[in-house]
Amino acid sequence: MKINGKTVSFDNPPVIAGSAGVCGKKEGEGPLAQDFDAIFEDTTMGQQSYELAESAMLHDAIIRALTNAQVSPSDVNFILSGDLLDQCMGSAFAIKDLEIPSIGLYGACSTMALSLSVGAMLIDGGASCVAAGTSSHFCSSERQFRFPLEYGGQRPPSAQWTVTGAGCAVIKSKGNGIKIKAVSIGTICDLGITDANNMGAAMAPAAEKTIYEFFRDTKSKPSDYDLILTGDLGLTGSDLLYSLMEEEHGVDIRNVHNDCGLMIYDLKKQDVNSGGSGCGCSGSVLCSHILKRMRKKELKKVLFVATGALMSPTSNKQGNPIPGIAHAVLLEV
Amino acid sequence: MKINGKTVSFDNPPVIAGSAGVCGKKEGEGPLAQDFDAIFEDTTMGQQSYELAESAMLHDAIIRALTNAQVSPSDVNFILSGDLLDQCMGSAFAIKDLEIPSIGLYGACSTMALSLSVGAMLIDGGASCVAAGTSSHFCSSERQFRFPLEYGGQRPPSAQWTVTGAGCAVIKSKGNGIKIKAVSIGTICDLGITDANNMGAAMAPAAEKTIYEFFRDTKSKPSDYDLILTGDLGLTGSDLLYSLMEEEHGVDIRNVHNDCGLMIYDLKKQDVNSGGSGCGCSGSVLCSHILKRMRKKELKKVLFVATGALMSPTSNKQGNPIPGIAHAVLLEV
Repeated sequence: MKINGKTVSFDNPPVIAGSAGVCGKKEGEGPLAQDFDAIFEDTTMGQQSYELAESAMLHDAIIRALTNAQVSPSDVNFILSGDLLDQCMGSAFAIKDLEIPSIGLYGACSTMALSLSVGAMLIDGGASCVAAGTSSHFCSSERQFRFPLEYGGQRPPSAQWTVTGAGCAVIKSKGNGIKIKAVSIGTICDLGITDANNMGAAMAPAAEKTIYEFFRDTKSKPSDYDLILTGDLGLTGSDLLYSLMEEEHGVDIRNVHNDCGLMIYDLKKQDVNSGGSGCGCSGSVLCSHILKRMRKKELKKVLFVATGALMSPTSNKQGNPIPGIAHAVLLEV
Repeated sequence: MKINGKTVSFDNPPVIAGSAGVCGKKEGEGPLAQDFDAIFEDTTMGQQSYELAESAMLHDAIIRALTNAQVSPSDVNFILSGDLLDQCMGSAFAIKDLEIPSIGLYGACSTMALSLSVGAMLIDGGASCVAAGTSSHFCSSERQFRFPLEYGGQRPPSAQWTVTGAGCAVIKSKGNGIKIKAVSIGTICDLGITDANNMGAAMAPAAEKTIYEFFRDTKSKPSDYDLILTGDLGLTGSDLLYSLMEEEHGVDIRNVHNDCGLMIYDLKKQDVNSGGSGCGCSGSVLCSHILKRMRKKELKKVLFVATGALMSPTSNKQGNPIPGIAHAVLLEV
């Protein structure tokens, strides 16, 4: 790897050899339905808890991604995964029977970009095959961060809807596939946001910082990309990102930006307020819809920037701010 | 890196250029007192919560380690850190103002070995300087996993005492220091343990697996090491590890094994039941006492194997087992 500023570039870019994105019923009723690798009508996945349902969904995405990349678990040097739940239990139970060396990650909703970034660096360093994945589940997430569903709490307009879904990508050192040309690990941004129902505002400054630094380090501009894809800023966070990019750096990214949280649902019909969120939002959208469009050459150069709100229920109840982080991955075919 | 089985070895071993281990009052009354880089009599660290106290302690360890390695935060390509708290808030708040690209890890009490392992692989891949750290705090951990201290719950003999402490090591690509010759990322082991007061039993099978595989991959035996150091198996877990190694593999590691959880407290006098535990246990002991002994050449070849019980309070209350994991790091001077 070569490091310039915050950006790591690869002379021999690692390759995404296969991927899969799976989701629940509500996501399967949205605009991206035809691109998901599986849609589970029963989002309990036949499990006794929502948490184990999330694990079952991630396990399914991992197996599909391995199959898509034509590798078996024993071919995988490392699996990198994390999720939103207490002590990343979603990933632990998804992975535990696979016998793959496991690097547990925590990056909140930035996990898909974090796992791809670290995975790509490990491949560049000499590993031959890694898997990168993440998941979220609406029901486990509401119980974890806000209220149990049974409580029937109301949600403000800035609130987002946690995606029930999972994604996994298999990265190899050589072969055909989508190239990971560069990655950028973000620094933590804390602007003092304390509202657990306004994740977009907590994450937008981190996205702005990482995108701006990526432009700076690679001497590129918005028009150099077919798509700048954020993870789950939603409506509120995307608007804030546009304002921040214009006010702070004089850069307009509107024409080239989209957000997985805005793409996965029909915001007019599906009653999801500010859009989708959760690790599984960018995980499932990137690993199905986006990578499929790239394989068809409909998109050739995508800057994927997943953002995370590093929100702990304990910390939030204690009145602490919610720090944000964003990691970037440059994908090219 | 070269990968043989589960073990990654380095032709040009990354170097631990500096480190620091800090702890609280109780740990400062134990046998390793003189080797800690700081002992905080006030374990609230002047913060408003135990959680923020943990963050302040980790922040202190990071700054001391950077100073010890004579690097500034802007020299550090990546910081790798994680902890036991909900959504790793200990690390997020410790790191957020350092402006260092942050790779959040989750490995429970295995985090010190996980952060060193991934850090060493990133250095080998081309990074020039990374920091690897972790922390735990008795009071934040009891609130998180068992009962708030105010409840005054009784503890069974197999229970361990979460160490209030933090450790950080700075790894560089060249220079003087302790060499990281090889690392091994573990696979998750689940033997169906459900008792949150018997972490040793949940983690011992993972330690056995990782140590055995490391011996196999490197064609080595216990007598090749000055010390095989587990993280926090405690009395119960260490005894179980000896039995498993003998029964499963016919290997006796008693003469060469010690456990950070047994070293940090005087078990006869300090009322800690089965010994110390927590990410900060192996973090603080390795980064102070052990690395200092290695720098003095009192120990030349140490196999550090930190184990983690991937225990989520949510999962545990739902009756799920506690999977374990262990990662290994071979240190040499």
